[in-house]
Amino acid sequence: MKVPVALGARSYDVRIEPGLFAQAGALLAPYARGGRLVVVTDENVWAAQGAAFTAGLGDIAAVPIVLAPGEASKSWVGLSALVDRLLALEVERTDHVVAFGGGVIGDLAGFAAAILKRGCGFVQVPTSLLAQVDSSVGGKTGINAGAGKNLVGAFHQPALVLIDPACLATLPARELRAGYAEVVKYGLIGDPGFFAWCEANGAALLAGDLAARTHAIARSVAAKAAIVADDETETSGRRALLNLGHTFGHALEAETGFSSRLLHGEAVALGMVLAFRFSAARGLCPPDEAERVAAHLASAGLPTRLADAGIAADGARLAAHMRHDKKAAAGRVPFILARGIGAAFVDRDVDLADVAAFLDEAR
Amino acid sequence: MKVPVALGARSYDVRIEPGLFAQAGALLAPYARGGRLVVVTDENVWAAQGAAFTAGLGDIAAVPIVLAPGEASKSWVGLSALVDRLLALEVERTDHVVAFGGGVIGDLAGFAAAILKRGCGFVQVPTSLLAQVDSSVGGKTGINAGAGKNLVGAFHQPALVLIDPACLATLPARELRAGYAEVVKYGLIGDPGFFAWCEANGAALLAGDLAARTHAIARSVAAKAAIVADDETETSGRRALLNLGHTFGHALEAETGFSSRLLHGEAVALGMVLAFRFSAARGLCPPDEAERVAAHLASAGLPTRLADAGIAADGARLAAHMRHDKKAAAGRVPFILARGIGAAFVDRDVDLADVAAFLDEAR
Repeated sequence: MKVPVALGARSYDVRIEPGLFAQAGALLAPYARGGRLVVVTDENVWAAQGAAFTAGLGDIAAVPIVLAPGEASKSWVGLSALVDRLLALEVERTDHVVAFGGGVIGDLAGFAAAILKRGCGFVQVPTSLLAQVDSSVGGKTGINAGAGKNLVGAFHQPALVLIDPACLATLPARELRAGYAEVVKYGLIGDPGFFAWCEANGAALLAGDLAARTHAIARSVAAKAAIVADDETETSGRRALLNLGHTFGHALEAETGFSSRLLHGEAVALGMVLAFRFSAARGLCPPDEAERVAAHLASAGLPTRLADAGIAADGARLAAHMRHDKKAAAGRVPFILARGIGAAFVDRDVDLADVAAFLDEAR
Repeated sequence: MKVPVALGARSYDVRIEPGLFAQAGALLAPYARGGRLVVVTDENVWAAQGAAFTAGLGDIAAVPIVLAPGEASKSWVGLSALVDRLLALEVERTDHVVAFGGGVIGDLAGFAAAILKRGCGFVQVPTSLLAQVDSSVGGKTGINAGAGKNLVGAFHQPALVLIDPACLATLPARELRAGYAEVVKYGLIGDPGFFAWCEANGAALLAGDLAARTHAIARSVAAKAAIVADDETETSGRRALLNLGHTFGHALEAETGFSSRLLHGEAVALGMVLAFRFSAARGLCPPDEAERVAAHLASAGLPTRLADAGIAADGARLAAHMRHDKKAAAGRVPFILARGIGAAFVDRDVDLADVAAFLDEAR
């Protein structure tokens, strides 16, 4: 199946199909100058999926750049090292680098492509559920700075996104659950029917049902593609809806040191529950809808209380983490709140003191 | 005077006027959130021009980030340090950073703006002749990599360019001459009348004639703006014409270690002479036109022979420096050659062996 991302001259397709890696050679041939493709990946992904991918590439010679797994690569040092390797491989502006891995690889390789010789092409081949449903689509690339995550980067659209849901078979269960939080997010933002589908099919998806995984990925990508096509660089406010759960979640990640204590998707799950409960506390959203959100995410094994994530910090401390949000404008942090399931909206008038007080109540 | 750069939603004006710094407050007020402007500059520029600029800013508080002068700042280390300082100053996406200095400052600060939170605004206030007539207009930003100059960067257009030709009064004479090479370039690319104007007025310009400087800057900016508007990201080939003298020049800079032994503008001057003489050697250009180019640049105190630049390397060695050109496509390096003064064109079929042989003849 093909989901188009309509961005004028920067339009591209997201191909989603179990077993797609077997067709990689034909799909990627137009991007392989001289029959060669530079593939940026990490040790874990390459060990689990590299053989299947290179077999599918057929006559195309993959030149892998295999990085250490983990967020540490998404740094100035990791970026400059990767760019230097791409330069040494004589990658040209019209060439395409393949980002083969999860969100870290996609963000890092995509950003390297954005700035190599002022921009070369790239193809996303996301191998984690989180990357498949979120980070590989829409062109956000970047690295972390000392002051915070993803504070340095570029909007740089891929030329193609290849998603093989079958490759999720080797993904660790905890990462799968974390990625599932971003699937649920699309239902919560604007599609109550899809949230109901998640309630009915989430367990099967997590247990390994390939058809459920494929459906969830396709619906998530279509939802994201529509939003991105409408607001590519996050200026109108529509794209900001994709940050549901992310402002709260970012504070939780900051508090846990952006470590494996709390994965990004886990932070987003808990952040979405907090956003709904905060909306309910402000009288914006029926409280039972907030609890329905919490119940489904808890059933998926995701944290829905600060204590679940082992966070003891008070509200003021957590709110302080939010102040440096990239999307702050004129000193105010926009929050994504909800009037109900499938009815998220941007609220630019939230006082961080109210957020802090709510978080103290919510523990 | 105002020269528009027509780039759709990214259009902006270049304001050129002696004494413009006195109006900086009014011109920059729309970009100073909370009455504050972060100004990236270097020690030399700030010492020579900082007081005049800040006086002109009036009520706007300048927050200067004063870097060490020289090309070393245009590095990964310099970039990450600058971005970290901008983050610490809580610069937001909708804010504008001022690049106040020569080409190094404009390239570095512009690139930092391009990637800060995936892109914030910036304003160019170029203080060298080279930056005024070339690097501040058109949105090319970047840093140097180990593998070569400007190999990492972004196309990121400023919101406004402010040029005060009066500030050239404190520019060292050698830098003025080097910048003048880029002025002459516009005549050589496509405007024989302007080249004739340079022959008639270049000496006065270099001696300090403010009217001549202002005219030369305005005509250069207008020429560049027309080319950039036509080919913003160097895809059609028209923008490549701006690289007249740059492929030869790049090899000369590489050979002299990108040091003060040979300034960029000096390398471009000698590179343009080599491009014309190479064109003449290939029977493309009348030899007397090539010598007319050399005579004018020599009269301006610019190098026109390899020996003038103290370069003893043979042709093969110089040609090898050209192989990693950013604009290489499918392994071939495009050259800007000329059929005469004002008649430059892109030749994508030049054999580097021919270039090497020519350079051995040309010494």
